[in-house]
Amino acid sequence: MAKIPVGVLGATGMVGQQYIALLSDHPWFETRYVAASPRSAGKKYACASAGRWHLPQTYSPPVGELVLEDANDVSKALDAAKRGDCAFVFSALEMGKEETARLELAYAAAGIPVVSNASAHRWTEDVPMLIAEINPQHTDVIPIQRKNRGWDKGFIAVKPNCSIQSYMIPLYALLKAGYTIDRIIVSTLQAVSGAGYPGVPSLNVIDNVVPYIGGEEEKTEREPLKILGALRDRGIEAASAPRISAHCNRVPVINGHTACVSMEFGGKKPSIEEIKHIWASFTGAPQELDLPTAPRRPIHIRGEEDRPQPRKDRDADKGMAVTVGRLRPCQVFDIRFAALSHNTIRGAAGGGILNAELLKAKGFLD
Amino acid sequence: MAKIPVGVLGATGMVGQQYIALLSDHPWFETRYVAASPRSAGKKYACASAGRWHLPQTYSPPVGELVLEDANDVSKALDAAKRGDCAFVFSALEMGKEETARLELAYAAAGIPVVSNASAHRWTEDVPMLIAEINPQHTDVIPIQRKNRGWDKGFIAVKPNCSIQSYMIPLYALLKAGYTIDRIIVSTLQAVSGAGYPGVPSLNVIDNVVPYIGGEEEKTEREPLKILGALRDRGIEAASAPRISAHCNRVPVINGHTACVSMEFGGKKPSIEEIKHIWASFTGAPQELDLPTAPRRPIHIRGEEDRPQPRKDRDADKGMAVTVGRLRPCQVFDIRFAALSHNTIRGAAGGGILNAELLKAKGFLD
Amino acid sequence: MAKIPVGVLGATGMVGQQYIALLSDHPWFETRYVAASPRSAGKKYACASAGRWHLPQTYSPPVGELVLEDANDVSKALDAAKRGDCAFVFSALEMGKEETARLELAYAAAGIPVVSNASAHRWTEDVPMLIAEINPQHTDVIPIQRKNRGWDKGFIAVKPNCSIQSYMIPLYALLKAGYTIDRIIVSTLQAVSGAGYPGVPSLNVIDNVVPYIGGEEEKTEREPLKILGALRDRGIEAASAPRISAHCNRVPVINGHTACVSMEFGGKKPSIEEIKHIWASFTGAPQELDLPTAPRRPIHIRGEEDRPQPRKDRDADKGMAVTVGRLRPCQVFDIRFAALSHNTIRGAAGGGILNAELLKAKGFLD
Amino acid sequence: MAKIPVGVLGATGMVGQQYIALLSDHPWFETRYVAASPRSAGKKYACASAGRWHLPQTYSPPVGELVLEDANDVSKALDAAKRGDCAFVFSALEMGKEETARLELAYAAAGIPVVSNASAHRWTEDVPMLIAEINPQHTDVIPIQRKNRGWDKGFIAVKPNCSIQSYMIPLYALLKAGYTIDRIIVSTLQAVSGAGYPGVPSLNVIDNVVPYIGGEEEKTEREPLKILGALRDRGIEAASAPRISAHCNRVPVINGHTACVSMEFGGKKPSIEEIKHIWASFTGAPQELDLPTAPRRPIHIRGEEDRPQPRKDRDADKGMAVTVGRLRPCQVFDIRFAALSHNTIRGAAGGGILNAELLKAKGFLD
Repeated sequence: MAKIPVGVLGATGMVGQQYIALLSDHPWFETRYVAASPRSAGKKYACASAGRWHLPQTYSPPVGELVLEDANDVSKALDAAKRGDCAFVFSALEMGKEETARLELAYAAAGIPVVSNASAHRWTEDVPMLIAEINPQHTDVIPIQRKNRGWDKGFIAVKPNCSIQSYMIPLYALLKAGYTIDRIIVSTLQAVSGAGYPGVPSLNVIDNVVPYIGGEEEKTEREPLKILGALRDRGIEAASAPRISAHCNRVPVINGHTACVSMEFGGKKPSIEEIKHIWASFTGAPQELDLPTAPRRPIHIRGEEDRPQPRKDRDADKGMAVTVGRLRPCQVFDIRFAALSHNTIRGAAGGGILNAELLKAKGFLD
Repeated sequence: MAKIPVGVLGATGMVGQQYIALLSDHPWFETRYVAASPRSAGKKYACASAGRWHLPQTYSPPVGELVLEDANDVSKALDAAKRGDCAFVFSALEMGKEETARLELAYAAAGIPVVSNASAHRWTEDVPMLIAEINPQHTDVIPIQRKNRGWDKGFIAVKPNCSIQSYMIPLYALLKAGYTIDRIIVSTLQAVSGAGYPGVPSLNVIDNVVPYIGGEEEKTEREPLKILGALRDRGIEAASAPRISAHCNRVPVINGHTACVSMEFGGKKPSIEEIKHIWASFTGAPQELDLPTAPRRPIHIRGEEDRPQPRKDRDADKGMAVTVGRLRPCQVFDIRFAALSHNTIRGAAGGGILNAELLKAKGFLD
Repeated sequence: MAKIPVGVLGATGMVGQQYIALLSDHPWFETRYVAASPRSAGKKYACASAGRWHLPQTYSPPVGELVLEDANDVSKALDAAKRGDCAFVFSALEMGKEETARLELAYAAAGIPVVSNASAHRWTEDVPMLIAEINPQHTDVIPIQRKNRGWDKGFIAVKPNCSIQSYMIPLYALLKAGYTIDRIIVSTLQAVSGAGYPGVPSLNVIDNVVPYIGGEEEKTEREPLKILGALRDRGIEAASAPRISAHCNRVPVINGHTACVSMEFGGKKPSIEEIKHIWASFTGAPQELDLPTAPRRPIHIRGEEDRPQPRKDRDADKGMAVTVGRLRPCQVFDIRFAALSHNTIRGAAGGGILNAELLKAKGFLD
Repeated sequence: MAKIPVGVLGATGMVGQQYIALLSDHPWFETRYVAASPRSAGKKYACASAGRWHLPQTYSPPVGELVLEDANDVSKALDAAKRGDCAFVFSALEMGKEETARLELAYAAAGIPVVSNASAHRWTEDVPMLIAEINPQHTDVIPIQRKNRGWDKGFIAVKPNCSIQSYMIPLYALLKAGYTIDRIIVSTLQAVSGAGYPGVPSLNVIDNVVPYIGGEEEKTEREPLKILGALRDRGIEAASAPRISAHCNRVPVINGHTACVSMEFGGKKPSIEEIKHIWASFTGAPQELDLPTAPRRPIHIRGEEDRPQPRKDRDADKGMAVTVGRLRPCQVFDIRFAALSHNTIRGAAGGGILNAELLKAKGFLD
């Protein structure tokens, strides 16, 4: 099977680099179009990213030879689409929210599907915000989106913020097993790569932590509700539970967001052993469809009392599995545990690629 | 006024060094006796601590000339007491819990008051666990303790774990103002100095955090209840509220424990502005008695959205004030905030010295 | 004696903040004028620096009330001078080199002496580059500078780069004792504060070091030659020895530059013991003139095999002393040792203040 | 071809774990015997290493089922050898030097070849200290070793200290190309994993560097001379050049030792371009023999001005290549550059495995 040619918008940024790296030997997709800011446009990708490449791993040489286009110029992507080099784009744009929102709409309107990592359209009613194991059925909003906007081929699908992956999959596994979750208090210890590059100044995090990340607590509290929401006529209606309160902290870790979660059930309460069983056996659409980037088991449970840890667990199943540990009764709510996911893989580029695989499997990307 | 001669047990350890440093120019107390493990005994303090001294600050030269005794040998301290070199001891012992418990009892039984940093006697019913701003009246248990045990001069007074100072003083300020607090969920981000030396291996905390500290969550959840407890005939009876659930994490910070606190009131709920006012104006016994180590204001409130931070706030008022910030409504409970205190000063040696000052002011140390 | 009113240019930057903090209780100087970039102009210092203040220590409240002026507008400083608020300025400007050079000239031409931390005029022939213990006699170039330029009151005096303080004072002590030094190979491990704020991205230095700092090796190799240079008719002529080769590395340390030095003597070679004696007894003009910021002993020698270390030694004598250790024979040259100095105190603001004190003592600042 | 069964001594330590991980899917060798300290003996490897496993990667399940033996008991290894489970052993022993020396001799005397990572026998005259690209011909000392000691099957081969790999291969490439190197001054910035676990306390390296590593400078200066030495009748005679002076520093990096090297040639001096060409095209025995663990190119050259960096370059070619950069003229010697190698892979377990592959290819391990 010929690979599907894809474009990466924001290809020189932190998440863009992660897309480029992860797509290097992807069985379905092949990076054939790269775009970034106007000042990078015209340069070969290898030159533009040299000296700004932050990953230990590298990418396939042909990608280095691609000439960067200006991401603001949709016509360049259309040209690429016409010559068979860009069936859809991954958006890792790092511009302002409104600018991103406008630009992603322009790509979609031009007939180029956008699988986005950006926050701009997360609350657009007819845009699905996907975690492939949780709400794959939300892709059904895409026909509504197209209809609402008069598009035939393009669409936008997004993924949520990197701070919630680690506990949303465990949380959803419990919902799926029939339990109700009323309230969650969560403190996150988030890695610096989440802020891009140059991002967090070293003066902020050497011998220090920062108990604040702009906008992060709001995203952490609200985005789960849309993911758990219901499909309605005009789009997705956010759920009303669980209520979530988040304390988001920046810590001196390169990759891997940790979450300390206290959770209160409504109604019936599962035992600790039951929860472990539910988590260990949980699978979702990516596993059932055998998507190439899907982790074999989405949730890894560590039995050691001091896990999960970012350095040791972030790369579980190539960074696509979430790791939980320290599951124990909570003195105030019902249970508490620690959860961890790789923020630039599962929480960003890897999650975006998994979404694209889901969309492809469902016939939205041909 | 001649200074009171004091001894430091465990003088070469992490907390012991902090005692030695803080006592260097203390107006009331003077270090004249130092004891540590048998293998240090017989060495001058300067020699024994050279190459193991972890603090940027140093100590007064005469202390360096003191010859270390074996802390296990109470008779050495008694000899020092007789020659006027040891009116009481600070215990910063780092041995096992039972050994510490036994040894502190032996000092007290021999007539040498013990102001301890160790956890061994925190739950001994007739031993006060003091935060000088919160429960100074618990010193009234000392006569009971003496009577229970047939001691006339010696006694034991302890301080709580370093993880709770940052939010216990703010919490108590609200109780004192007439509010009731039912439930607390707290996540701590704790500094490595809390584990002593060599303590936390660097492999654990470079590019990493560890979501577990042995025994710390239990202490964090239970000790506040004794501090808030009531004096009864035989000792102190722990309070039954608030219920606390703690997630304790180790982070790559040298000094300064941060706590992310969500708090639920019972009954009447103060406004955010009211809480700020209560905190800003709070004082306790140390301030009223004008104790030398007392911070001028026990609670500092920072208005910036990204404070408190360990590196910037741990040294507030010489490390004796706690700093709070990010006070805001909680989506699940009533309020949430971040709190920070210096774990080896306010949370250990400085807190111990403040307790001794309180005991002195109340006539227990003459 | 009334304090001399001083201005700080670039007062909100990293080094500017350090100036503000160090001048807070200075016995001779008082900050009465602050200037920064146009976007800060018009704001009170307390407001402009809130949220950008990087130091644990703070400053005296009246400074917080000062209204920032635009540093580009020399007339504002002249106005301040006329109303008795600005006898001279400390320059901690963080603009481009040419812009800084031009602006510092404008201040001096306007009659306002400039004691600068910037690199712009380090190689201007008639501008002295001072380390107060080494070349205090270079202040004699100031009359030449004034004559060259037709100034009567203003002048510019600068200090060298922060990377060389740690070993230049020990090196000079040996020269002063009559030894000749031919060649030096030095590797530096430099703190992130040297790059200002935001400065070094955390992604560069968590679990990492960077073997490169732009422009730093050239400065490290050349600036010592001017400091050791001779006064000639038109200015200072750089010395031709020692030859220095530098490897400059960025490491994850907040403050404190470490240097690993191998040194080759020409002619007579001192013994290790002799060197220790020379260093321990070395003093210079700041000590002889008893300048307020002068360290009592400029060179501290540590005997432990693992010192100096940034966290333990950078604050020696309030950050103004340099600390050396590990003095031992070199397998290739004659001797080798490790040296350390606080880069934002001795290596920047503290060194600048010491220079101003020297200039004041010599009658250049009245 | 059936895999050769191998044993790992010190299998639960830091380097031992790296051996276990790297051997997990080795094409020639299979871990079938594991031994460690007496207190681990009798436990399954999975249990004994749980909670002490420091690597992100893991190992093949059958290894987890192996029961650890006491490494002090050679008879256990002999039994394993007899039942076909231990053709030779990798020694990653972490005991004292003399104890290690004695024990490795005992294994060899019992007929079990020892491919060692330990320093105990590095200066034993008839034991080869191998870097497979540099001195593969030193394996010729093995027959002499066997003859000297009356062994027929067993022997000991060792590898050098982890601090020298990064620049010894580039240095040797220049020697091989016909240049003479007289003198080297090198400063190393070494990762904490080099000290094993628990190893370096976090209090030593957060916001800090330590300019001292016990014994490291001596090894760094002397071991190259044996590697470059000549085979004589009784063993290997160390070379007399180059003279090396080392400054060894510990920095807060998990893996990857960086070296800043200044180098002086004797006689003819290559140009910078010539050196780059020599390095880029250098290969040795591992490449010529196409050994499984051999890096394709032993020396990677980075053109960016800020490389090599530990986090970005340590994993070059699975951690087996060394990376050099910043090649430039030295102001004092002839050239200077920065070099980096992964200290627990190329500098320890990976280097040991490569040595074993070389020995196998030469017929010493059948």
